[in-house]
Amino acid sequence: MAEPLRLAIAGLGTVGTGVIRLLEANREVVERRAGRAIEVVAVNARERGKDRGVDLSRFAWVDDMQAMATRADVDVVVELVGGSDGPALTLARSALDAGKGFVTANKAMVAHHGMELAELAAIKSAPFAFEAAVAGGIPVVKGLREGTAANALTRIYGILNGTCNYILSEMERTGADFGEMLSAAQEKGYAEADPTFDIEGVDAAHKLAILAAIGFGTRIDFEAVRCSGITQVSATDIAQADALGYVVRLVGIASMENGDEATGRLLQRVRPCLVPFRHPLAAVTGPTNAVVAEGDFSGRLLFQGAGAGDKPTASAVVADLIDIARGQAGAPFSVPVNQLATAEQGDPGERMGRDYIRFTVADRPGVLAEITAAMRDAGVSIESLIQRGRDRDGGEVQVAMVTHEGPERCVTAALELLEGSPSLAADPLVMPILGN
Amino acid sequence: MAEPLRLAIAGLGTVGTGVIRLLEANREVVERRAGRAIEVVAVNARERGKDRGVDLSRFAWVDDMQAMATRADVDVVVELVGGSDGPALTLARSALDAGKGFVTANKAMVAHHGMELAELAAIKSAPFAFEAAVAGGIPVVKGLREGTAANALTRIYGILNGTCNYILSEMERTGADFGEMLSAAQEKGYAEADPTFDIEGVDAAHKLAILAAIGFGTRIDFEAVRCSGITQVSATDIAQADALGYVVRLVGIASMENGDEATGRLLQRVRPCLVPFRHPLAAVTGPTNAVVAEGDFSGRLLFQGAGAGDKPTASAVVADLIDIARGQAGAPFSVPVNQLATAEQGDPGERMGRDYIRFTVADRPGVLAEITAAMRDAGVSIESLIQRGRDRDGGEVQVAMVTHEGPERCVTAALELLEGSPSLAADPLVMPILGN
Repeated sequence: MAEPLRLAIAGLGTVGTGVIRLLEANREVVERRAGRAIEVVAVNARERGKDRGVDLSRFAWVDDMQAMATRADVDVVVELVGGSDGPALTLARSALDAGKGFVTANKAMVAHHGMELAELAAIKSAPFAFEAAVAGGIPVVKGLREGTAANALTRIYGILNGTCNYILSEMERTGADFGEMLSAAQEKGYAEADPTFDIEGVDAAHKLAILAAIGFGTRIDFEAVRCSGITQVSATDIAQADALGYVVRLVGIASMENGDEATGRLLQRVRPCLVPFRHPLAAVTGPTNAVVAEGDFSGRLLFQGAGAGDKPTASAVVADLIDIARGQAGAPFSVPVNQLATAEQGDPGERMGRDYIRFTVADRPGVLAEITAAMRDAGVSIESLIQRGRDRDGGEVQVAMVTHEGPERCVTAALELLEGSPSLAADPLVMPILGN
Repeated sequence: MAEPLRLAIAGLGTVGTGVIRLLEANREVVERRAGRAIEVVAVNARERGKDRGVDLSRFAWVDDMQAMATRADVDVVVELVGGSDGPALTLARSALDAGKGFVTANKAMVAHHGMELAELAAIKSAPFAFEAAVAGGIPVVKGLREGTAANALTRIYGILNGTCNYILSEMERTGADFGEMLSAAQEKGYAEADPTFDIEGVDAAHKLAILAAIGFGTRIDFEAVRCSGITQVSATDIAQADALGYVVRLVGIASMENGDEATGRLLQRVRPCLVPFRHPLAAVTGPTNAVVAEGDFSGRLLFQGAGAGDKPTASAVVADLIDIARGQAGAPFSVPVNQLATAEQGDPGERMGRDYIRFTVADRPGVLAEITAAMRDAGVSIESLIQRGRDRDGGEVQVAMVTHEGPERCVTAALELLEGSPSLAADPLVMPILGN
């Protein structure tokens, strides 16, 4: 049997210790598939003394994380520190620069600096892998990089943030409002103390940008992701959606419009969407993640599983390590980084679809006429309109409508016509209806 | 750029021509991911003159299929002829023996001769791949071979036969009986003129045996798959299941009992099962396939998509070819074939679970008492019992019961007690209830 693959692990939070536990518990499974042993030789974390429930005495403790990158006894550096810049990025650069393999679960860093790191990895012929950065234990990076490799993909979309999905599906189950369910999620450990990145959709945007690059063979363009979170979704919206035959989910959608990956325009968006009851994503509840890829030959493929957690994430980290141990890591973004296309941004106004639009309006005559006139003037055709219940306090009511299929630019124009109108008590919320 | 990967394709049915079409339509996509061109150089089929809608004049036509295996201008032989033995097997042996790569969609051949072929491939260091043999376009062979590689799996199960799933979900939708829906499936091209292999569960058993070998790292043991098909499932069963909160699906289940892949016992079964409405497999309708893998670290993963069809199958064939073009084919069964474990067969009697049992009985007093006495004597605890409707003609009625959780051996014992009883007008049908 070949020499062991020797690891340095930076970061000993739940995922870092999860990786150590997995390599112990499944030593034989891993060794049979990797063709050689995978062994931790060095570790680093902020606090040395902390009890993490695993025996660290067998490993060299490295006080200076950056020193891991140049140790002669290390083949691969595993970064589980987090943060898009700072020490994690410095470590990534120095590990790859030293020709070490580099494996990370850090979606923010890959979304922001993935191209630079892939270029460095290519120059140094060093493996660079990040299955764990997207959708936890689901092998969807591999699925898009290799499983769908024969296809021109048209769309990649999915539920990429477990916190939001937990909150939305709990709102659906209990009828409670967003704030209440956010607190519940925080108590259960499904949301962080500062949940901004999750609930504003930034975390899903990181993952979407990575998946789009892999699936379409384009350079990562995180800045181009149009992103809105779930903080504006109310219990009323969810009840309304339910009455219409939909659930509300935060969906990241990347689509290649008007051409293939060499000539098309890439539209990347993270938004709460209305998902038809019978769509596979409607059945995805709690912290589960799911990704759909639509290929011209494969048709629609669905990958579903645990989107986070120490054990699923460790499963993904070690899957990468097994690939590296077998010398089969491949190009991190499916095609060599210097051949990735630079996609132009798609125009969201051109999107054809149906939308759910919810207005919070003053409860007085003439308001509905004003809204429907704006829709008419902008060329938006209304399929249904519901005004449900009345607010107890403020004299405000919620009006929800669903449009017929049309270009998104018309909806935008209609809302511009209504901007500043005293009839509107709050900004309208637009949620696209996910098509089949 | 490296030299092209040169193919010989044996078999030009819908899948064979699908592969040729894919390589044309997605030439650039494939080449960017493969790192080199993938080109067909030689083809063979039974009828040369037939119009297949693709231009074959660019390729060498080989009259003797076996001659493909030794052509100097061929790197990989793609077998799309079918049949577990005969010409397909001869071709596989001679291609691998000549050191050519070998890619196939032939589940029957892999289930029966996969070990022999993998051994030959290992000796010759020739790539051997069969993503297309299981679940059409879903990259589940890769998913289990590499995506879940860090896990000790406990169960692999899924909907592996599109014909049966189409028939069952159409029976569910229309209330029609099996025979009627089989004819409908044949008209729509979802079932073959001789549907035996599909409806008796043999096709699903082929696929299950392959998935089990990959997922558990054990030698294929097709003979050990206990298999029953869907011909006994009646419209009444489906209505009954619906009333109880279940749908009926043909599910292949491989489970590793009492230990890990080195020491455990492997139970492989294909049977119609009752699937709870909320289980992801319940939402799988029509010819769709879905596979669930349960890993000790990954948790439950679901892979879903088109289980058959020329385009999805071609997508899977070419994914294998891209892996081979990049030199990343790996061990066909996840671990080198000489290291695959030989699993002992599990004892189905030990399975703990709940069952649905349907009796067709003579409509006369005392029958229910006889059945329930047999259950009592065998130690089966009945959760519910329904006697619904009466047969118009024969004076027969259907009695359905659901058992409490218990060992399967007790149910078997109860049915043995009832064997030969004049009260039973037909063999009882047992369908396990899929647990969560």
